[in-house]
Amino acid sequence: MEMETICPKFEKALELLSKRWTALIIYQLLKGPQRFNEIQQAIGISGKVLSERLKQLEQQQIVQRNIIPETPVIIKYALTEKGKAMEPILLSIEHWSQQWVEAETN
Amino acid sequence: MEMETICPKFEKALELLSKRWTALIIYQLLKGPQRFNEIQQAIGISGKVLSERLKQLEQQQIVQRNIIPETPVIIKYALTEKGKAMEPILLSIEHWSQQWVEAETN
Repeated sequence: MEMETICPKFEKALELLSKRWTALIIYQLLKGPQRFNEIQQAIGISGKVLSERLKQLEQQQIVQRNIIPETPVIIKYALTEKGKAMEPILLSIEHWSQQWVEAETN
Repeated sequence: MEMETICPKFEKALELLSKRWTALIIYQLLKGPQRFNEIQQAIGISGKVLSERLKQLEQQQIVQRNIIPETPVIIKYALTEKGKAMEPILLSIEHWSQQWVEAETN
């Protein structure tokens, strides 16, 4: 059998998704642009970690921070095209988990 | 906006996939049943960690260990139905990474 090497792009995508909370934040933002507090409450993450993750996701061009010029200013986080393109990943994980993961056991 | 909680099954699936090497092992086994050494060489993982991960994946009923009664005995690892059902997840990650992950940066 010939050995192929795993594509580095694929490995990078896995690394990104493996970071705790990252996939949940993207999943949550698939519902639409949201304020910091909305995301925080929905997924039960600490403010400190959420702020850190959102910064990383902005750097990776998966999330964008939109400033809505009202008084007071409203800031909403939204998925970019790159972020929205992750929808099939999250949906396939959701689908698999509904079919195969048992609720109480491991 | 109403807050929904994230489904615990979904969180469990994410946790499982987030464990370093796990997704790569499943991805590799999508190509068919393989011997320990084949998996090890293909993904460049240490024998110790691979052995640990395969045991966990067996416990989670994602991988099964098949003993082929030849002389000497051959042991191959294969995906179960639950494991094979993860194919759309891995393929969608692969697809996204090909489209959106840059090769050299980040």
